[in-house]
Amino acid sequence: MNARRIIVGVMGLGETASDVLCSAAYVIGQRIAEQGWVLLTGGRAIGVMDAASRGAKAAGGLTIGILPGATVDGASDYLDIPIVTGLGHARNTVNILSCDLVIACGMGLGTASEIAIALKSERPVILLACSAISCQFFEQFSTGKTHVSVDVEHAMQIAQTILKRKG
Amino acid sequence: MNARRIIVGVMGLGETASDVLCSAAYVIGQRIAEQGWVLLTGGRAIGVMDAASRGAKAAGGLTIGILPGATVDGASDYLDIPIVTGLGHARNTVNILSCDLVIACGMGLGTASEIAIALKSERPVILLACSAISCQFFEQFSTGKTHVSVDVEHAMQIAQTILKRKG
Amino acid sequence: MNARRIIVGVMGLGETASDVLCSAAYVIGQRIAEQGWVLLTGGRAIGVMDAASRGAKAAGGLTIGILPGATVDGASDYLDIPIVTGLGHARNTVNILSCDLVIACGMGLGTASEIAIALKSERPVILLACSAISCQFFEQFSTGKTHVSVDVEHAMQIAQTILKRKG
Amino acid sequence: MNARRIIVGVMGLGETASDVLCSAAYVIGQRIAEQGWVLLTGGRAIGVMDAASRGAKAAGGLTIGILPGATVDGASDYLDIPIVTGLGHARNTVNILSCDLVIACGMGLGTASEIAIALKSERPVILLACSAISCQFFEQFSTGKTHVSVDVEHAMQIAQTILKRKG
Repeated sequence: MNARRIIVGVMGLGETASDVLCSAAYVIGQRIAEQGWVLLTGGRAIGVMDAASRGAKAAGGLTIGILPGATVDGASDYLDIPIVTGLGHARNTVNILSCDLVIACGMGLGTASEIAIALKSERPVILLACSAISCQFFEQFSTGKTHVSVDVEHAMQIAQTILKRKG
Repeated sequence: MNARRIIVGVMGLGETASDVLCSAAYVIGQRIAEQGWVLLTGGRAIGVMDAASRGAKAAGGLTIGILPGATVDGASDYLDIPIVTGLGHARNTVNILSCDLVIACGMGLGTASEIAIALKSERPVILLACSAISCQFFEQFSTGKTHVSVDVEHAMQIAQTILKRKG
Repeated sequence: MNARRIIVGVMGLGETASDVLCSAAYVIGQRIAEQGWVLLTGGRAIGVMDAASRGAKAAGGLTIGILPGATVDGASDYLDIPIVTGLGHARNTVNILSCDLVIACGMGLGTASEIAIALKSERPVILLACSAISCQFFEQFSTGKTHVSVDVEHAMQIAQTILKRKG
Repeated sequence: MNARRIIVGVMGLGETASDVLCSAAYVIGQRIAEQGWVLLTGGRAIGVMDAASRGAKAAGGLTIGILPGATVDGASDYLDIPIVTGLGHARNTVNILSCDLVIACGMGLGTASEIAIALKSERPVILLACSAISCQFFEQFSTGKTHVSVDVEHAMQIAQTILKRKG
């Protein structure tokens, strides 16, 4: 007997996320919940984090957010479990280490710091909606470990394949 | 609509916890789950953390563990959600900030660091099975904020009163 | 050849430090510098941290401050090296782990969290100007490892004895 | 009066650093010390961190290392001040926030996480010996803020220009 649930992280743009990117994040959140996986994000009420959490809750999933501040101020309303760290950017490491698999939904500097730590810590990574330069950047350090996906359904297929192998 | 669940932390002795203390922690875990609250602990497979998580799972609750290491090695089998921090002792701060209320079940050095941060961060604290010196130590810094309980049922009554006022 | 300097931490009250306590912290800072040791504090421009740093600089010493915020705002002017962590209370662990020996100059909740981590991490601890309850609290967990000093000169004698043994 | 010293971080490859890269890091360390700046690195006894610290000490400089472990084990012999964090990869954030300017000497996953946090936290960044893809990766998020240098002397000229403007 082991109570442990599979945890999938969705990282990505905050304030600068486009509507299209947030729609993709929403669907990813839904799909994660439908698989019975727990969604983990950076927890804030903006961008990809918020959209993915909203999608997961719409599908009846469980959502965790690892917050940078020392209180729940600014947390997404769609979190079951806000983890309040007070660690600022250093919380990015906690986001990553806690996940069985990480999906980057768009790429910015915060997400870049997370994906770098994920690859260094041997957490599987799927990139979605990232520029060719971003994909090549990470691939140069991690041949065969960075999975580039072309759309949400492709990302979910890769995730299922990886997590089935682990399970 | 807000998905947020109430989170109650149970902190306490690890390797050096007595059987009596672990039995108390098990019942506290059960009672927390019966109230519909989420249990949060330091997540390791020993002492108060493990016993409280086991109790909460026996009552169908949801359990979170904030682990000090960079992997899930050494985690309690009774965690739904292991949060893997890699922060060592610095994860004690995350344990505390994430809780709506903290119960100390016995007192050691790790727990002391947590209760000090809890009182400094204005998280309500209930002490159970702590020596008179330990109770006086914390009361000297926090008049009226450190709640000393005489047994598990008393601790749970105090917890309900505090969380009803917040909710 | 090893460039490593001996680092002595001075922890203690911030906003609530009395003038008498700050005078003691100033002299401790001086004495640490006179021994050729590096002073490490929590780095803020208040209370014991600021006074100790001021004393060390007056004696030509080197001063390090481990700051909780993400910028140098609020740092003591008497720091050579501000270490900017952005970790909030979690930086207390960094304060302690970096020291060869820790002196508590007065006791509050922040200092309590630090002394607890110091004893747990086997860093020698000297208590100065702490209440009898505070001294007994830490002694119950660490027989023979918590050194209670009666005044600044006594604290410095204990420090010299401990660090000579290590060196 | 303000005792504060200018701190320049040198980040870069660890185990996988080539001899040529380590020679460049050594010279950078020397130049930093000659300018009267303090050198800050990740502190381990390998690769760019060790070489830069060795160079700085050869030129009579002051060296700080922010270590990932909970003890000084594995620290470079060329550190005056080992800061022991016990934070694992989360210490990368402390490396960056503590610097007035950061030089990346080669690029790997750890360095990538640091440069991403540096740009997000508005610390000036100079890239040395990084691939074209790496330079383009960071430039896409930070137009005009990532400075690409062609050799050590060029990197030092850029550093002097930036720090003169700040000073």
